[in-house]
Amino acid sequence: MPTLTFRKAQRTDLETIVALLASDPLGQSREDASTPLPAPYVSAFEAIDTDPNQLLVVVTEAGKVIGTLQLTFLPNISRLGAWRAQIEAVRIDPNCRSAGIGREMFLWAFEQARARGCQLIQLSCDHTRKQAQRFYEGLGFEASHIGYKKVL
Amino acid sequence: MPTLTFRKAQRTDLETIVALLASDPLGQSREDASTPLPAPYVSAFEAIDTDPNQLLVVVTEAGKVIGTLQLTFLPNISRLGAWRAQIEAVRIDPNCRSAGIGREMFLWAFEQARARGCQLIQLSCDHTRKQAQRFYEGLGFEASHIGYKKVL
Repeated sequence: MPTLTFRKAQRTDLETIVALLASDPLGQSREDASTPLPAPYVSAFEAIDTDPNQLLVVVTEAGKVIGTLQLTFLPNISRLGAWRAQIEAVRIDPNCRSAGIGREMFLWAFEQARARGCQLIQLSCDHTRKQAQRFYEGLGFEASHIGYKKVL
Repeated sequence: MPTLTFRKAQRTDLETIVALLASDPLGQSREDASTPLPAPYVSAFEAIDTDPNQLLVVVTEAGKVIGTLQLTFLPNISRLGAWRAQIEAVRIDPNCRSAGIGREMFLWAFEQARARGCQLIQLSCDHTRKQAQRFYEGLGFEASHIGYKKVL
């Protein structure tokens, strides 16, 4: 198992993050990893970077970024005012998959969420990502909800 | 159809919001609407109230609060840096249901999300809420995802 390091993403990681998002079967039709990056990526990075309830993360091995994920900490009135963590945009370099890296990334995310006082962690997963679904269930996630999306 | 007014929730609305959350079949086992309210509700309210990406809303009719919802505006790198809106904790007074109020609340939420530049709105719905699922599908939401949750 490689030794992974987790850190908050910096602006200089953004091209790599977008390339990771674009390397994914669903992402390749949705993203544009051409450089210079389209401006909305940079604006979104700045909004995330300056929001104390957002944590965009890169995972490195031997100094090279091999993965990314976004954690959001959400205050809610429901469930006795419990904070939740939400995890989005998890991607691992296609050359590094199936080495327990995903599991280590999630265990790290659970610790971050607990450290922020979150009582629940949630995510939504496209119906077509069958392998990811088995992975989440193996981590103790319950498929208790239906995830709805609507383009505005 | 009653005339509805939408406004940002104030601290003085919190008891009513918690009572609405507790009036729900799933909420009644999860919430505690006793007064004074348990302190975590108040802390969560303050966190939401001071976060520019959170909007806790009450819906009033003739000055009386009859509904609530929470909107969160989320910056994301994915989908070309698109902002999303997320909707949580939608509740309507049991005495006022089935009068088109829910629909009006969602149309209002869509407008707020568009005004904030969101390109997508998302929510997750417990598998057991069958009536809510038909309602979301009637509003154009697609059940494209599985919503996973894990207690930390």
